[in-house]
Amino acid sequence: MYRDTKCGELRLSDAGRDVTIAGWVQRSRKMGGMTFVDVRDRYGITQVVFNNEINPELCNAANTLGREFVVQIKGKVAERSSKNPNMPTGDIEIIADELKVLNRSEIPPFTIEDNTDGGDDLRMKYRYLDLRRPCVRKNLELRHKMAFEIRRYLDSKGFLEIETPILVKSTPEGARDFVVPSRMNPGEFYALPQSPQLFKQLLMVSGYDRYFQIAKCFRDEDLRADRQPEFTQIDCEMSFVEQEDVIETFEGLVKHIFKYVKGIDFTDPFPRMTWHDAMKLYGSDKPDIRFGMPFVELNDVAKGKGFSVADDAELVVGICAQGCAGYTRKQLDELTEFVKRPQVGAKGMIWVKVESDGSFKSSVSKFYSQDDLKAWAERMNAQPGDLILVLTGEAMKTRKQLCELRLEMGNRLGLRDRNVFAPLWVIDFPLFEWDDETQRYYAMHHPFTSPNPEDVDKLRSATGEVRATAYDIVVNGTELGGGSIRIHDAALQDEMFELLGFTPERAMEQFGFLMNAFKYGAPPHGGLALGFDRFVSILAGLDTIRDVIAFPKNNSGRDVMNESPSPIDDAQLEELQLRLDLKKD
Amino acid sequence: MYRDTKCGELRLSDAGRDVTIAGWVQRSRKMGGMTFVDVRDRYGITQVVFNNEINPELCNAANTLGREFVVQIKGKVAERSSKNPNMPTGDIEIIADELKVLNRSEIPPFTIEDNTDGGDDLRMKYRYLDLRRPCVRKNLELRHKMAFEIRRYLDSKGFLEIETPILVKSTPEGARDFVVPSRMNPGEFYALPQSPQLFKQLLMVSGYDRYFQIAKCFRDEDLRADRQPEFTQIDCEMSFVEQEDVIETFEGLVKHIFKYVKGIDFTDPFPRMTWHDAMKLYGSDKPDIRFGMPFVELNDVAKGKGFSVADDAELVVGICAQGCAGYTRKQLDELTEFVKRPQVGAKGMIWVKVESDGSFKSSVSKFYSQDDLKAWAERMNAQPGDLILVLTGEAMKTRKQLCELRLEMGNRLGLRDRNVFAPLWVIDFPLFEWDDETQRYYAMHHPFTSPNPEDVDKLRSATGEVRATAYDIVVNGTELGGGSIRIHDAALQDEMFELLGFTPERAMEQFGFLMNAFKYGAPPHGGLALGFDRFVSILAGLDTIRDVIAFPKNNSGRDVMNESPSPIDDAQLEELQLRLDLKKD
Repeated sequence: MYRDTKCGELRLSDAGRDVTIAGWVQRSRKMGGMTFVDVRDRYGITQVVFNNEINPELCNAANTLGREFVVQIKGKVAERSSKNPNMPTGDIEIIADELKVLNRSEIPPFTIEDNTDGGDDLRMKYRYLDLRRPCVRKNLELRHKMAFEIRRYLDSKGFLEIETPILVKSTPEGARDFVVPSRMNPGEFYALPQSPQLFKQLLMVSGYDRYFQIAKCFRDEDLRADRQPEFTQIDCEMSFVEQEDVIETFEGLVKHIFKYVKGIDFTDPFPRMTWHDAMKLYGSDKPDIRFGMPFVELNDVAKGKGFSVADDAELVVGICAQGCAGYTRKQLDELTEFVKRPQVGAKGMIWVKVESDGSFKSSVSKFYSQDDLKAWAERMNAQPGDLILVLTGEAMKTRKQLCELRLEMGNRLGLRDRNVFAPLWVIDFPLFEWDDETQRYYAMHHPFTSPNPEDVDKLRSATGEVRATAYDIVVNGTELGGGSIRIHDAALQDEMFELLGFTPERAMEQFGFLMNAFKYGAPPHGGLALGFDRFVSILAGLDTIRDVIAFPKNNSGRDVMNESPSPIDDAQLEELQLRLDLKKD
Repeated sequence: MYRDTKCGELRLSDAGRDVTIAGWVQRSRKMGGMTFVDVRDRYGITQVVFNNEINPELCNAANTLGREFVVQIKGKVAERSSKNPNMPTGDIEIIADELKVLNRSEIPPFTIEDNTDGGDDLRMKYRYLDLRRPCVRKNLELRHKMAFEIRRYLDSKGFLEIETPILVKSTPEGARDFVVPSRMNPGEFYALPQSPQLFKQLLMVSGYDRYFQIAKCFRDEDLRADRQPEFTQIDCEMSFVEQEDVIETFEGLVKHIFKYVKGIDFTDPFPRMTWHDAMKLYGSDKPDIRFGMPFVELNDVAKGKGFSVADDAELVVGICAQGCAGYTRKQLDELTEFVKRPQVGAKGMIWVKVESDGSFKSSVSKFYSQDDLKAWAERMNAQPGDLILVLTGEAMKTRKQLCELRLEMGNRLGLRDRNVFAPLWVIDFPLFEWDDETQRYYAMHHPFTSPNPEDVDKLRSATGEVRATAYDIVVNGTELGGGSIRIHDAALQDEMFELLGFTPERAMEQFGFLMNAFKYGAPPHGGLALGFDRFVSILAGLDTIRDVIAFPKNNSGRDVMNESPSPIDDAQLEELQLRLDLKKD
């Protein structure tokens, strides 16, 4: 071992000890006849002192150290004369006796500090140096700890972690599967799994009762800002359970993680909201409930006053921003611009200020009397000093626009604190989604999702109203994961396939493998999958999952550090019996 | 929840309780007016009784149950009149009040029992049913427990589990990489990692100090009996360490697993053997030391007596099988046939029996006097009643042949008990291997393996003698894993590349990415990887890793259950800008 002491552990009580440390030179500085070198390892930073008067040769050697040199230092721990209360080892320093350069370093392309001078591209190219920055390291330490605690909790609940294959079967609809040509089976391909869904359901058929896996999943899709071609899921499935059992088990998991990783104890059950209410009150199936500001519908008080924007709208709906009546024209214009951005897509915004004297100022005073606006304010429970913001239009679109506006107001009012966590179950999702273009229903989750038992008789008579036994868990407006109770009854499954427009042949072609397994005694089962990258990023208070992945890819699916993907040899293509067929453009 | 009680938990003390169980019908039988149904879940089997006199309707329903039907049963726990001491729940049964068939089952293609009537191919095709057999389930439960304990140990030692990518860079020599075409980067490919080697060394450069990962690895090679295209490794790396530190840490891991998983406490350090001794004494770099029977070289006592088979041989070497002097001619012929099998490849076998009166009988009495053979026996420390078996020929080949014979004798003598575990470190591997064909040295491990510091001055003068700082851990004659201290010094690395015949350009092309990272302060580091599948199979007492993998592939890399790999759509190929180029043959 090159050291007997780590760089983060020495305290005043260690003064007088002879120690050996090893690590990287964070920085060094000469002051008078002394040279101070900060040595960094994973565990912290320790200051080392070289005294030119006592040992000029050693001090000269120290003066040649560059940033990020790897050094081994022996010396005696001493109390510092000027202590640094900002670092755990700030009470001591090491008086160096010996210095050994274990490795030199070129000057790194950016500073190895939380506030680095390196831009995004440079840091990704030199990710191995970026990973040295303490703020990045903390994310990966958090990730380790969370994975460990997830396993500890699930193990204690009788779950077995079972590895399912990475080389799986490509499905006919799997245009978005990554595929892997098989050299031993020319012309044939494996796929990389988008999720272990089929395998975990098979494991339930196999009687494993409680399965989980922290599993790599893959999606070959055009990457949005915060997607990665490979990502990690906490994938779970349970047998002989109903929705309540799954929710209880995984609410327990989320509480366990918050408690043991963040020290936050959620004692009450997480709130639950139906999908219908979530859409109606927050315009989203993943509402951020760190703050209120629910939607209030105003159709009956806003229509019929000759204001065509309201009269022609399917929905007039608003939020009440408490204490914002003082907003300036500029601020209101900013909000109008915000909702008119193409990403939001509203045509305009109505505002109503409730003045301190109870009177109203608004952008629609031409059409609405003070009494009219009073009716609005009463409906919204708006008090003097509040600001009412209203959007109009087609119902679902308008709700989504107002959702964006509400979140923007939450940001402006500081109501979305990264250190506050508001989990929520969204339940009673619709089982089907109607698609106008193809004029048919699609499964909102997947075709194995069980309908709510109370709604089974509506499957044909009121298809669109059938609720699924499906649930999502949402934290701070981000979908952490979701799942469902699966159909285990063959007759019901056949009916589902029919409703979804699958011919029996096509159903067999796509899902035959699972359907065959189901013939041999499938238990009632259900499960859930949580996005592990997302879970870590939420607890780390980060906006993107990229920062909690050691070696992420960029938006083109490239690893700019090692320049992959990359061309392969002709010989290798030949062995795979493949040829490139590149489109010219 | 469909149950309040699992099928393995009821005991006599539960008698009188009202319970609900759910599971699969293991078997049912009618005896007099009673029907007995064994219900199985992951946790065990419980007997349920239906009484035709008390409730004929319910009993009739029970009589219609087929094997593997999924049932829910409510009833009262009662003491059995005839107890079954062979099962944990054998003292009780449930007197059924209610029976609900949750799902029916077709007749399974083989019996769901440890001693099934299903052949290998059938069981693999219906792997989801094979997985129901308790002996298979126990393997996966063991695997879960081992993975959990591995993580618990490594976490306690400060290791961070860090996920490295599955979509990595294809290396120029990576003809055996699986590759993944990138739709977003046409003509370019990712590779699936053969190991996280580069990434774990990068993580050391990044200062992570102690890394591990239970990682999926991939090798597109022609599969031998016990290889899988995807397999799992316990991959580890540590910084600022020497060989002793790595060995100590992972010996601790192996001991921890044996203790907490198998209840076996290894208190002494694991024995260590140099590679040189392992080859000389056991003819293998992974000797099975559950038993002795070491090789004894007989050149000086066997040569020069006019027996050309010995005289012309580079090596005459034997083992002493204690107490086997009574072997019959048939048994000796079997052994001779054994060593002459093409897999072993010896030309013949010499035997010498030490009779109870101290005289000798042998297959070479024509050439050797009783005194000559006495010299052999003394050299081998053979006692009356022992059998000496000797092979001759080219040294390394003969050692490998004798290794097979020794293992065969171990089997015949019952010295290779699956419940006995004999771990061993093999150390001081050669750094280089000479290849006669290409007349040059190759790295025995990989080009980053550090030479033994004592041998660095021999790198050019006695290249073949240089020892690596590399170590393997062997259990019961199986390589469980191995590793090395890596080179962190750029000058030494350059010298290694030169000795291995890499031009600087080729070295840069193949390893440039890591070499660049090493310019920025690489710490001394080293590590190890253990085959996780292998580790589980050793503890399970199994010969193959296939039995500890939930969904394994066959020797052609196929999953016969879901028929993958499989052809993909033309549309998908077109999107990937690839064409099949199948060879006609």
